[in-house]
Amino acid sequence: MRAAIYRGAKTIQVEQIPDATLLAPTDAVVQITHACICGTDLWAYRDPGNYQMGWQIGHEWMGTVTDVGAEVRTIKRGDQVIASYDFCDGTCEFCRKGLDSACEQGGLWGFGHEGGQAEAIRARFADATLVVLPPEVAADEAIVRSLLPVTDVLAAGHHAAVSAGVHAGATVVVIGDGAVGLCGVLAARRLGAEHIIIAGHQPQRLALARQFGAMDSVTASGDEARARLVELTHGGAEAVLECVGTEETLNLAVNVARPGGAVGFVGAPHASHIPLERMFACNIGLRGGLAPARAYLPDLLTDVLAGRLDPSPVLDRTVALADVAAGYAAMDQRQAIKVLVHP
Amino acid sequence: MRAAIYRGAKTIQVEQIPDATLLAPTDAVVQITHACICGTDLWAYRDPGNYQMGWQIGHEWMGTVTDVGAEVRTIKRGDQVIASYDFCDGTCEFCRKGLDSACEQGGLWGFGHEGGQAEAIRARFADATLVVLPPEVAADEAIVRSLLPVTDVLAAGHHAAVSAGVHAGATVVVIGDGAVGLCGVLAARRLGAEHIIIAGHQPQRLALARQFGAMDSVTASGDEARARLVELTHGGAEAVLECVGTEETLNLAVNVARPGGAVGFVGAPHASHIPLERMFACNIGLRGGLAPARAYLPDLLTDVLAGRLDPSPVLDRTVALADVAAGYAAMDQRQAIKVLVHP
Repeated sequence: MRAAIYRGAKTIQVEQIPDATLLAPTDAVVQITHACICGTDLWAYRDPGNYQMGWQIGHEWMGTVTDVGAEVRTIKRGDQVIASYDFCDGTCEFCRKGLDSACEQGGLWGFGHEGGQAEAIRARFADATLVVLPPEVAADEAIVRSLLPVTDVLAAGHHAAVSAGVHAGATVVVIGDGAVGLCGVLAARRLGAEHIIIAGHQPQRLALARQFGAMDSVTASGDEARARLVELTHGGAEAVLECVGTEETLNLAVNVARPGGAVGFVGAPHASHIPLERMFACNIGLRGGLAPARAYLPDLLTDVLAGRLDPSPVLDRTVALADVAAGYAAMDQRQAIKVLVHP
Repeated sequence: MRAAIYRGAKTIQVEQIPDATLLAPTDAVVQITHACICGTDLWAYRDPGNYQMGWQIGHEWMGTVTDVGAEVRTIKRGDQVIASYDFCDGTCEFCRKGLDSACEQGGLWGFGHEGGQAEAIRARFADATLVVLPPEVAADEAIVRSLLPVTDVLAAGHHAAVSAGVHAGATVVVIGDGAVGLCGVLAARRLGAEHIIIAGHQPQRLALARQFGAMDSVTASGDEARARLVELTHGGAEAVLECVGTEETLNLAVNVARPGGAVGFVGAPHASHIPLERMFACNIGLRGGLAPARAYLPDLLTDVLAGRLDPSPVLDRTVALADVAAGYAAMDQRQAIKVLVHP
């Protein structure tokens, strides 16, 4: 089968690899119908870091089950299924607590495991990992586009909102106008936020944020951004969604949080300093991390399928698997927010 | 009247200053019967930092009301009263939210305001700041010793426990065996923690921690402390109370928290780096800061007066106001955990 393989910075190649197959009795094999490129993939695309040459890549996907292992009980051949960006056993302490991202046997698709930008995938712990979709869904491209963000970016935006304690009537600042930040706006609105302000730099994305429910946007950086956000929130936001992960944005997040408020951070942190003195003096909490996307999936899916939640506009380009490299390049150059991949 | 005045590192002098008097109609004047020296005072004692020469010092005190302003409604002359380490107006957004430490008109006793290591004090916002004690309490030295820690260190330990999400059955690590850490043990037990482990270095204090409810103690530092705490908690504690504030202890706290757990930090942070990558990968929260001690005071007081909570053993030395410098020296040299001052 064909799959996207990481061959170093700026080099994603589609290569022939052995067909996906059952390796454990709890596995399923899924023929992938749709996948996405994620901002997280871009970190490796730009700089290998710990990402190794030869690894598969891609962790957002849905498809059709073609085979199941002997111990799989709830998933059957022909099912249309969706997964979160992480796989999990569904039985460990952390899965039981709803923190599948810390599953003792879990992991992320790609990152040395099977990848989602491929024709098919071995889905580990199929009963725990896969969620069956209504059969008619997969044939409706509009619905598919609204579902795919649930696998990762919408779950991340939701996790930022939950971690920051967004509640009905809250004033919320969202930092970052990438797909996660945009989904953070949607998630904050869904949780009842009254006033949502987004900080970002791309006019088109900020326009989309307004469509999603943001009432104000701030394009400044540094001290100017801070001053403007503090002014717009009359002294700071009760909840700040940090959806980037740089030292500058993490500092901005803490500095525009209201005393007693919290920062929900879901951008992988490329930083080490944070303003601990302000956190201490003002009782500002910091919480978040890898979203427990599998735990969130059913609720978010319900709202998407009911038409109450539609993150599909973040998918603004489509490529065939053969052209996946062009998709990476488009996202890297900020010509696309998020790319849908058709295997 | 006489009051302790900060005259630079290692220099606290008792000097004559103008008598405490009403300056605003919401003030009361309180003749101080008991005060304490706090670990926070030691920061200034060791290194001025922002603490200015000539400022009064001391923020833990109780006493007898001798005068009240025209707008004071709930406090009257002759009342025995206790205050938290912070004063607050009781009416602003943050006071109404229970976060008096962020009061818009509030502040800390000492730190450029009236200080508690003195014969008397002008108590600002008397209705909001002061809590009236049963009249018989002040005459009972044993009860007084159990009440005084509520003004600050017990409130701080409780805030660490609340911020870390201590709940019934929780496994809790307390970092620091100073008065706040010891009170953290008491507070965690009060909230129903099942297994409490304290990390510190002073055998006598660790023995007191066991008396307060800790089941294990760890005296190692660095990687050894981390390994031992992870072993004792079978993979990390759901709640970690960070009661020191150095970079080493903050890092240790994050590194021994269980995935999905939280660090409650109440030691004024003298640090800038924290392990954000671990916080992200494991969804470990960080929350805390200056305790909203006034908000906590009534509940903690109720338990102390009912005999259910007794932090008095942290007060292990008593000095007269004239000898307050000796009290500072004893705490600085770790010969005393906490010193009671008799004006």
